[in-house]
Amino acid sequence: MPVHTDDPFLRACRRQPSSRVPVWFMRQAGRSLPEYRAIRGVGSILDVIRQPDLAAEITLQPVRRYGVDAAILYSDIVVPVEAVGFGVDVVPGVGPVVREPFAGKADLGRLRTLEPEADIPYVLEAVHLVTAELDVPLIGFAGAPFTVASYLIEGGPSRTYARTKALMHADPSTWTALLDVLADMALASLRAQVAAGASAVQLFDSWAGALAPDDYAALVLPASRRIFAGLEDLGVPRIHFGVGTGELLGLMSDAGPDVVGVDWRVPLDVARTRIKPTQAVQGNLDPALCFAPWEVLESATRQVLAQGAGPGHVFNLGHGVMPDTDPGLLERVVEVVHAAPGPVDAPPIGDG
Amino acid sequence: MPVHTDDPFLRACRRQPSSRVPVWFMRQAGRSLPEYRAIRGVGSILDVIRQPDLAAEITLQPVRRYGVDAAILYSDIVVPVEAVGFGVDVVPGVGPVVREPFAGKADLGRLRTLEPEADIPYVLEAVHLVTAELDVPLIGFAGAPFTVASYLIEGGPSRTYARTKALMHADPSTWTALLDVLADMALASLRAQVAAGASAVQLFDSWAGALAPDDYAALVLPASRRIFAGLEDLGVPRIHFGVGTGELLGLMSDAGPDVVGVDWRVPLDVARTRIKPTQAVQGNLDPALCFAPWEVLESATRQVLAQGAGPGHVFNLGHGVMPDTDPGLLERVVEVVHAAPGPVDAPPIGDG
Repeated sequence: MPVHTDDPFLRACRRQPSSRVPVWFMRQAGRSLPEYRAIRGVGSILDVIRQPDLAAEITLQPVRRYGVDAAILYSDIVVPVEAVGFGVDVVPGVGPVVREPFAGKADLGRLRTLEPEADIPYVLEAVHLVTAELDVPLIGFAGAPFTVASYLIEGGPSRTYARTKALMHADPSTWTALLDVLADMALASLRAQVAAGASAVQLFDSWAGALAPDDYAALVLPASRRIFAGLEDLGVPRIHFGVGTGELLGLMSDAGPDVVGVDWRVPLDVARTRIKPTQAVQGNLDPALCFAPWEVLESATRQVLAQGAGPGHVFNLGHGVMPDTDPGLLERVVEVVHAAPGPVDAPPIGDG
Repeated sequence: MPVHTDDPFLRACRRQPSSRVPVWFMRQAGRSLPEYRAIRGVGSILDVIRQPDLAAEITLQPVRRYGVDAAILYSDIVVPVEAVGFGVDVVPGVGPVVREPFAGKADLGRLRTLEPEADIPYVLEAVHLVTAELDVPLIGFAGAPFTVASYLIEGGPSRTYARTKALMHADPSTWTALLDVLADMALASLRAQVAAGASAVQLFDSWAGALAPDDYAALVLPASRRIFAGLEDLGVPRIHFGVGTGELLGLMSDAGPDVVGVDWRVPLDVARTRIKPTQAVQGNLDPALCFAPWEVLESATRQVLAQGAGPGHVFNLGHGVMPDTDPGLLERVVEVVHAAPGPVDAPPIGDG
């Protein structure tokens, strides 16, 4: 792998000084890029993911266009559960849809250990293809147990997560067993992605912000913590992210990532006070500001840089790139971030 | 009006000791009640609201069933803008839908000052009918300028509020003018509801939690503050609520309500540290827990009582009653809340 130890993204994840603030964008690959729309074809994203050459090309497109400091594999958090036959599709404009939602203990039998080489060879092949061409780190990813469980139980996107919350409280032993098997799957998938060449990983607990802190701590945190612990020996940076998780940042930092992703609701300097001093922050430009005039976007970009200032800031959006985003604006955001001075070590003492 | 000055709800709003913790539920009237479904008929909620006798009866139903300590008028936050002819409907299962969304300065001409007696006489008549029968306070309500504006601009419910954020940043003078006229409308509506008999008001900024704190402070707070200031002379408790507003509680308390509503993401004892010591809290049981076993709901109810303990706690859900909720469970929640001891004054000093 051609990724160097002085890579700005990896150094920022480890809170080391670097020549510049690294930047990448969640959902940088995909629908907002004309070059993606030109090659994607029809069908579900799951069909695309099963074609490693196509998934690899889509992964590389935003790196070429934007000059971002990391690639993230073009994939989906439901790939592992779909691969073991749970019956999930991803409907354009809707999201994951589960034909027979998880309703109780008996449905545990529909899940099993993930064997990445056998179950998701196309994902690993895409990682191989991408990393052979890439000169910045590739981020592998997985869905965190809570968020994947919420799709399996709700049957699709939800605003309330009522079924998920009902099951976790009504049958905590089944809930715990479900999160354990999903944690095992995420861990197996992430380890395999790293073995195939990924230089970092991100665990998406996108919808954990729906939970009360006590429920997160008792019923979600243990499974997420086990994933991060199970990655420790690999020595790659581990990122953790969810939307609307301001109240959970401390608990998500307890789960053990190296980097905590933050959405735009919490200024990064405030976020730093809620996580461990050894952890970096990632974020947090509001992706909706890409529809405001450039001057507003530029000013907000500079504000994120100022609030994130210091070692251990990976610049990103506070959520994924929205489909109608003008890629030209994100190019300019990258320019602004890259023109800013990188974080340096504390100045030597006693130079006065 | 038969509401007494020792009313537990009004006393809690004012942080005065009372015989019990008062309780009501957002969306306590409506779809979850069989007696509502029996009389509602077909058509939009706006058609129902235009029939004062029907709206009054629907408002009274949950008071009879639950024995809650306050009624809230059966109405909708888009009633004023619809009444001045903006062209809004409320589609069952979807929410407010605007036929021609607000797109820019020219659309300001489609809004005007609300004349409650002429524009929404049916609302005021419903208030009269309800308060003639009611022996607990009636809460009048309005939508806060940001949340109403978001419907007008997005054209319907949104997950991203991208158009709203784009407009507020791209054309702040039009945005400010829009929020000003919506603030005037909310204020006129609330003052008229109080004049007609409402004993308290709630301003719903349901979706303000989508905003970064700086944007809220600069572009939303001033209009909301003007509404609360404009109600001060009436002497009725003013409640302010939004979902997912943990990061905004301090700013929403700056807007000047007497009571700050909190969702389940922030424990009430934590919420109290973010608002003024003169303000009461309202909340914050997760409405999704109504789908968990009773033991879970009971335990969560007691936890809310414990975390909210002290003068100035109005028990409520952290968001509205969900449509499929079993009303029998909410009856039991009321029993648990009413069986708990009310907050008392600090004990006299020197009794040891």
